[in-house]
Amino acid sequence: MKQITETIRRIRPLDQEAVEAAERHLDRLTKPPGSLGRLEEIAKQAAGITGETIPDLTRKAVLVMAGDHGVCEEGISAFPAEVTPQMVMNFLQGGAAVNVLARQAGADVICVDMGVNAELAHPGLVSRKVRYGTGNIAKGPAMTRQEAEAAVLAGIALVEEFAAEGCRVFATGEMGIGNTTPSAALAVALAGLDAEEAVGRGTGIDEARRLHKVGVVRRAIEANAPDALDPLGVLAKLGGLEIAGLAGVILGAAACRCLVVIDGFISTAAALVAVRLAPESAGFLVASHLSQEKGHAALLEALRLKPVIQLDMRLGEGTGAVLAFHFIDAALNVMKEMATFESAGVSRG
Amino acid sequence: MKQITETIRRIRPLDQEAVEAAERHLDRLTKPPGSLGRLEEIAKQAAGITGETIPDLTRKAVLVMAGDHGVCEEGISAFPAEVTPQMVMNFLQGGAAVNVLARQAGADVICVDMGVNAELAHPGLVSRKVRYGTGNIAKGPAMTRQEAEAAVLAGIALVEEFAAEGCRVFATGEMGIGNTTPSAALAVALAGLDAEEAVGRGTGIDEARRLHKVGVVRRAIEANAPDALDPLGVLAKLGGLEIAGLAGVILGAAACRCLVVIDGFISTAAALVAVRLAPESAGFLVASHLSQEKGHAALLEALRLKPVIQLDMRLGEGTGAVLAFHFIDAALNVMKEMATFESAGVSRG
Repeated sequence: MKQITETIRRIRPLDQEAVEAAERHLDRLTKPPGSLGRLEEIAKQAAGITGETIPDLTRKAVLVMAGDHGVCEEGISAFPAEVTPQMVMNFLQGGAAVNVLARQAGADVICVDMGVNAELAHPGLVSRKVRYGTGNIAKGPAMTRQEAEAAVLAGIALVEEFAAEGCRVFATGEMGIGNTTPSAALAVALAGLDAEEAVGRGTGIDEARRLHKVGVVRRAIEANAPDALDPLGVLAKLGGLEIAGLAGVILGAAACRCLVVIDGFISTAAALVAVRLAPESAGFLVASHLSQEKGHAALLEALRLKPVIQLDMRLGEGTGAVLAFHFIDAALNVMKEMATFESAGVSRG
Repeated sequence: MKQITETIRRIRPLDQEAVEAAERHLDRLTKPPGSLGRLEEIAKQAAGITGETIPDLTRKAVLVMAGDHGVCEEGISAFPAEVTPQMVMNFLQGGAAVNVLARQAGADVICVDMGVNAELAHPGLVSRKVRYGTGNIAKGPAMTRQEAEAAVLAGIALVEEFAAEGCRVFATGEMGIGNTTPSAALAVALAGLDAEEAVGRGTGIDEARRLHKVGVVRRAIEANAPDALDPLGVLAKLGGLEIAGLAGVILGAAACRCLVVIDGFISTAAALVAVRLAPESAGFLVASHLSQEKGHAALLEALRLKPVIQLDMRLGEGTGAVLAFHFIDAALNVMKEMATFESAGVSRG
C-alpha cells in the first residue's frame, strides 16, 4: 500500500487561480455568460487540472484493460468467457467499436492484459497480467490484497509513462466477460446500493437471469464480508483485475495532472474505488455517458458525477468515454477560437 | 400554400428494406446486439432516409437563420435587439460558438438573413429577407400568411440547393434576440403546453422577468386566437421569420431525403411547425441536446424526440446540433469500419 499512498499524496486540488482565469476568459466570449453549460465547466476543469488557462489537450488515449472473472462459472453473462481474449485480439486488430470511435476522435487505443485467463501474444499488447482471471467472488475473494495492489500500481505506472510522452487526457475502457457482476458488488459494498438496484442485464441476459445475478452478488457480499472503510480490501475481495487497473489509471492521472474521462458502469465502479482511496481524484474526472446498465445512474449519483451523453449504450470498452473526447475538444476550441464581445463589436446584455 | 403542399407531397416514409439491411449488418458486428443504443438507431435511420445501407454522410451544413422580433419592445430579453445583426456579422467572420464547433465537426456554416431588422452586407451572407423583423405578437400577428409562406419556401429552396451540391445532413441554427418568446407561444398553440411550462429564461433573464414573459405569451395567444389545425396560420400569427425558415429547412430536407439534426428550444419549435404541417417529416429528425431552456423537454416530448446530449447549454445558433454531428459520423463509422463476429473470430452469445 505504501506506493499507492505515495501516489495519492501527490494528488493536489485543482488550481483555483487557473479556474478563475478560464472563467474570466469565458465571460468575455460572444455568448450569454454560462450559456455553453457543461462545456464551460469542462474548460474550467481543464484549466484547474493543468494550471494553464487554455491548455493543449490534443493527445488523448483510451486505456482498454482486460481481465477475466471466476464468477462466470455462476452463469451470470450472456457471452462465454472465451470472448474476453477474442475481443482483446479484435482490439489489437483495430476492429472493435472502441477502435472505430477512437480513430474518429484522434485518440490512441492502448490495450492492456491485466488478467485475461489465456495466453495472449501480439506486438501491440501491453501485458501487465497479474494473474489468470479472478477467483469466484460468490465463494471467496477475487484476488489477494497484494494482487489488487499490483494491479492498481500497474495502472498508475502506465499513465505515468503515457503522461511523460505528452498525453494529457485518458479514457477508461475495459473488456472482461462477467465484469458487471463484480462492479455491482463494488457498488453495493462501497456506495451502499442495494443489490437489486445495482445489478443490470450486462451484455443482454433476461430478467430471470438478472434475478439470479442479484443473488450471486448478495452471496459475494456474504462470502467476503467487505469493509467499506478499506477500499483496497473491498477491491481485492469483490473486484476485477481490469477494474483495479483502471482505479490505478485514475489515481495516476490525478497525480500527473491529467483529465480522465470515465466510461460506463464498470469504469464508474473503478472510479468509485479510486475516489474512496483518494477523494481528491474526483476533481479530475469527467463522466461521459449514462449507460443503459441498471445501476449506472445510481453509481454516478453516489459519485456526484453528471454524464453528458445519453445514447442508451451498454457496450463498455471505453466507447462512451471516447465519444466524449469530442466535447473536451469542443470546450478547448471554444476557449481558443471564439471572438470576444470587444473584438466582434457585440453589445453585452 | 400550393408550393409548400407540393414539397410535403414529396416526403415519403423511410425505406424499411434499407432499415432492415442496416439492422442485419449491425447485428453481425462484434458487439452485443443493440449495445450501441441510439448510435444504432441513427445508423438505421440514415439507411432508411437515403435508401443505402451505409450512406456517405460526410458533407454537412448548419443553416443559421436570423430574424428580429417585434415582441422585444415588451422587454422580454436580457440582450438588446441590436445584438441580432451584430451576431450575424460575428457568424460571417467565423467568431461565434457555432463557427468554432462547426469547424471542429467539418461542417459548413450558412448564415441566412431571414428577417433581420437592419441592412446587412457581407459577401458570405445569404439574404432571404422577407421583412425587417416581425410585428409584436403581444398585440397582433408576427407576419402575414403570405410572408410566413415565403419564409418557409425560402428554407425549402435553400436546402434543395445545398442537397443538389451533395450535402446530406443539415443542422438547424438560429439567431434572433427575443426568439424564445415566439417559440414558447408556438409550443402553447401547437403542442398545448401551458405558458408557465413553455416560458424559460432565454439568454438569462431573472425570475421576475420570466413571469412577465409568461404574461406576454398569454397576451400573444389572446390577441391572435391561433387555430392549432392551421399550422401555417399559427406560424404567421406567433412565429418568427427564422423559425419559419427553419420549418422550411426541415420540410425541404425530408423531401430531399436528407437527415436534419435539430438544436434547442427554438429549433424544436420550428420542428413542431414542420411536423404539424407534414407528420412524415418527423422521421428525418435527430434531436441533439436537451437545452436548459425550461420548455424544451416538454416540447421534445410532444414530438416524441429524445435528445442524445445533455450539456446544460442554452445558446442556440445550432451549437448543440453541430456537436451531435460527431455522433452521426460515429454511427456511420461503426457501420463502415467495425469487424464482424466472423471476420474477427469472436464467439456469439
